[in-house]
Formats: sequence, structure tokens, C-alpha cells
Amino acid sequence: MQADKFNKTMARQKASVDAGIERASQEQSVIVLLTGDGKGKTTSGFGMVFRALGYGQRVAVVQFIKGTQASGEELLLRNNFPEVPLVQMGTGFTWDTQNHAADQAAAVSTWQAAGAFLKNPSLDVLLLDELTYMLAYKFLDEASVLSALHQRSPQLSVIITGRGGGTGLRELADTVSEVKNVKHAYDAGIKARLGIDY
Amino acid sequence: MQADKFNKTMARQKASVDAGIERASQEQSVIVLLTGDGKGKTTSGFGMVFRALGYGQRVAVVQFIKGTQASGEELLLRNNFPEVPLVQMGTGFTWDTQNHAADQAAAVSTWQAAGAFLKNPSLDVLLLDELTYMLAYKFLDEASVLSALHQRSPQLSVIITGRGGGTGLRELADTVSEVKNVKHAYDAGIKARLGIDY
Repeated sequence: MQADKFNKTMARQKASVDAGIERASQEQSVIVLLTGDGKGKTTSGFGMVFRALGYGQRVAVVQFIKGTQASGEELLLRNNFPEVPLVQMGTGFTWDTQNHAADQAAAVSTWQAAGAFLKNPSLDVLLLDELTYMLAYKFLDEASVLSALHQRSPQLSVIITGRGGGTGLRELADTVSEVKNVKHAYDAGIKARLGIDY
Repeated sequence: MQADKFNKTMARQKASVDAGIERASQEQSVIVLLTGDGKGKTTSGFGMVFRALGYGQRVAVVQFIKGTQASGEELLLRNNFPEVPLVQMGTGFTWDTQNHAADQAAAVSTWQAAGAFLKNPSLDVLLLDELTYMLAYKFLDEASVLSALHQRSPQLSVIITGRGGGTGLRELADTVSEVKNVKHAYDAGIKARLGIDY
């Protein structure tokens, strides 16, 4: 790109960005839904949690699906930020347990913890990791979940990750990002790698 | 979903996941490209960095575009992980500076730092945040960048974020995830929020 053309393009972009900032003037907490079939939803959700911690905000994390090993995010939270509440559903990946009744009971009890965080007036950010699957499997009542999210403490922003989640959740969410899998090393026979894939 | 149907579905999913793990047997470092027009590329890249730190891995971060204020990720790295090398291109967002020559010089010098990390045999993960724009603006020579990535130290995985990036980079990357903007609070007039949007 030529220098003069570049400068004009940048000036136009800046004008458009500034106008957008001017228009968006409503201060309110938001619900962010990170969905889609691609890699990086949970990672992105935890990235937001760590960023909020960087600003000194108060955060809490609820994980509705948990692998059998402690993830790097979990280790980092526990070791470096022990003050952050971290609630994990106890049964591991549901396709490993294959016990419908136990999974549902675990989901309901985990949701109770989430419900308490949603009413907490001193939290800034709450991550509900993999919540969508609890709705897809009908472990949780969709109407109750949507209503608790909608009636949350007003300062609290909520990040929800997972594929799907249903129309109601998409409509309620202020921001929806979809992560699409374009290609994955795994499909080329490359082993999943610690620190990259999990 | 009925309990028996649920259990069958889960068993099928587990079998498919296990077969995939069996097939993917090649141990190697990877290049991950996080691209698309949606929110969460940089956040996801930093999420991977923090996860790797949780595992005790050695990471480095190079940011090719940097806002005028310190981000939460930057604050968290500097305050909690001062041992992590963090190199930032000095000129801020290019659409704020509108100085083509200065931006290009900054990009080239920042890329030199990235090049040194790429040859470092003791790093596990390197984040090249917003590198794609340096290619789009032709600040950096695409062939040299691709070749340095390809010839990196063999243990090192690289995460690259940003829209676009070109066909060459997409082909070289082992994993490509595209973040699609489905809707954004901003478009409904809601102000960008600290800890959520930036």
C-alpha cells in the first residue's frame, strides 16, 4: 500500500471507530456468549477472566464440564489467585460417566452455586464455562436459567461458553461470538499438545 | 432426552473421541491461527498463554498493535509474571498514528524480537498478537515471516492472532479457528466495558 493511500485508509477507519464510540453510550453489564464448533471458547472465556483480574476486578468461575486432569487455567487460578471462587461440577466429562441421573443431580447442584454468584452485588465478572451443554441435555430448566441470568445483580457481566445453547440464550446475550473450526492439527494426525490444545 | 437414549449418545461420542485420540499420534509443535471478524481472538491467544503458564511452561508474547492504555492481560503479565518476556510495538494503534514510515519501522524492529524468540530452544509457547495486520499492510515481507515461522525451534508452538493474514499463513498453520461476530452489545448502543470488551 502506498503511504498516502494508507494514511487516508487509516484516517477513515479512525473516524468510523470514533463515531461508533460516540454512539455507544449506555453503561451496563453484559452477557457474552462464546459458542460454535471451533477451538478456543473456554480459552477465550478464561482469557476474559484473567484480563479482568489484571484490572483488579472481582471474578468467579463455574465449570459445568471438567476433564479428569486439572487444566492449566485451573492450576493458574488455584496457585496464583486462590481468592477467586472456582466451582466445578464433580462428574467429569459426561461422555465418560454415562450416568444420566448422577450427571443431572450434579448439574442442578452446580447451578445453585452459579445462582448465588448471579445475585452477588460485589462481583464484576462471572464465567459459566460449558453451561450450554446443561441446557442441551435438559439437565437444567431453560426458563429458570434465562430468568436468573436476566435478573442478575446489575453490575455483573456474565460469560457463557459452549456449543449451541438455544435461541433463548442467544436472544438474551448482548454479545455472541461464534468460533468456527477452519482446520485442526488433530485432523492431520498431530497429537493434542499440552499448553496448546488443553 | 430419555436416560437410555442419553447413555447411548454419550457412549457413541466417547467411542468417536477415543478413536480420534488413537489416530492422532504425531508429537509436534503447532502453529495456531486465531482469525475472523469477531471478538475474542487476542483474548483467546492470551488465554492460551495463561493456561501454558498454569502448566509451568515457558512463554513469550509479542504484540504488534497496542492500545494507548495497558490492557488487563498486560497488567496481569507484568504484575504476576514479570519473568515472561513481553515485547510491544511502540506506536499504538496504527489508525491513531497515521504515519506509514514510522509504523513500518516499528513493525520491522518488533519482528526482529519475534524472530529471536522463534529460534529460542527453551520456549514452549510464543504469542504473536495481531501479526496478521503487519502482513496485510505489507509492513513485513510475507515470505520471510512464513519462512521464520516454518523454521522455528522445533519444540515451540506459536499462536498468531488477527483478521486475515493471507493464504500462505493459513496453509502453514496447523490449526485455524475463525471467530465470527454474531452480535455485539456495542451495536445495541451499549458502551464497551472494562474487563469484558477491553
